[in-house]
Amino acid sequence: MIVVSFDPGFAHCGFGVVSFEPARMRVLDHGDIGAPTGATDEERLDVLCTTIDGIMNRWTPDALGYENQVGVHVRKEEEGQQASYSLKRVHEVTGAIRMAGNCALAERVPIYTPAPQTIKVQFLGKGNRSASKKQVKDAVKRLFGVVTGEHAADALAGSVAIVRMHREALAKLARAHAVFTSRP
Amino acid sequence: MIVVSFDPGFAHCGFGVVSFEPARMRVLDHGDIGAPTGATDEERLDVLCTTIDGIMNRWTPDALGYENQVGVHVRKEEEGQQASYSLKRVHEVTGAIRMAGNCALAERVPIYTPAPQTIKVQFLGKGNRSASKKQVKDAVKRLFGVVTGEHAADALAGSVAIVRMHREALAKLARAHAVFTSRP
Repeated sequence: MIVVSFDPGFAHCGFGVVSFEPARMRVLDHGDIGAPTGATDEERLDVLCTTIDGIMNRWTPDALGYENQVGVHVRKEEEGQQASYSLKRVHEVTGAIRMAGNCALAERVPIYTPAPQTIKVQFLGKGNRSASKKQVKDAVKRLFGVVTGEHAADALAGSVAIVRMHREALAKLARAHAVFTSRP
Repeated sequence: MIVVSFDPGFAHCGFGVVSFEPARMRVLDHGDIGAPTGATDEERLDVLCTTIDGIMNRWTPDALGYENQVGVHVRKEEEGQQASYSLKRVHEVTGAIRMAGNCALAERVPIYTPAPQTIKVQFLGKGNRSASKKQVKDAVKRLFGVVTGEHAADALAGSVAIVRMHREALAKLARAHAVFTSRP
């Protein structure tokens, strides 16, 4: 089973592709989608769209995920902080990811949107709600043996969190696929 | 030449499909994309995504447009108003539209993102920067002979504005297509 997850960002959008087999999980791909310096906002969004679509088509995942940034946005404002320009535009990235999950592949894939704290707790264990980006990155290195940027590490942690939280639903889906594809 | 334009909204997203021929323009399709009452935010976004993708595939437009809501969001905050929850989530809709423009069709189409005031001025004429939704709807009825909702009227006005502003670029594009498709 392959899960693609994103750490959505307008300036940098991390992605991680993880393969989950019964006895083993491994990183198939990871990275940080950016745009050339000097790109306009719309050029940047176009680079994000075509790269996200390319990742979906290359890996044809069984499930897709992204960190819930609307929750972050709402919470910031409730705390009296104004959302940054990037945090306004980040929702365009999550919309593009959602479109990819709905329409990039022949079949719609399930889309999970865990909150940042949920990802940390699922990935690092209880008591790690507020873990730093560095802690996540270090844990990704220990677990998978790959050195990544912070955004890609967050995305890979997201994939693991999604599988840990939705193992049963995903296993059922994988079985349904296996039955379907083994028919003559 | 066919232009599809959207009036992006999270609760209601208007769309308009206009065909522009040298001597005539006409409405091919229009509507208001909503989701069933009681749908969750994510179900709503999924309905928007699949409907937008369906519109793109049905009409294979030569250009795409949507009202620039990031500008609206930024201006509101500069004026000291807090953006509503809908205005946070509307960017997910524009991201989905942008993904559709980049990746839904075999070929990327140009995407234009006029500001709301620009659409009004282009559609209704100078001095109409602050025209009401009803004025736009009435003008759509006069021009095209179709009765629409307010969101669809905004979207149709967007298509007309885009063609008025980018006539030369779009004509060049149409000629390039004609040359290409007339080759043996």
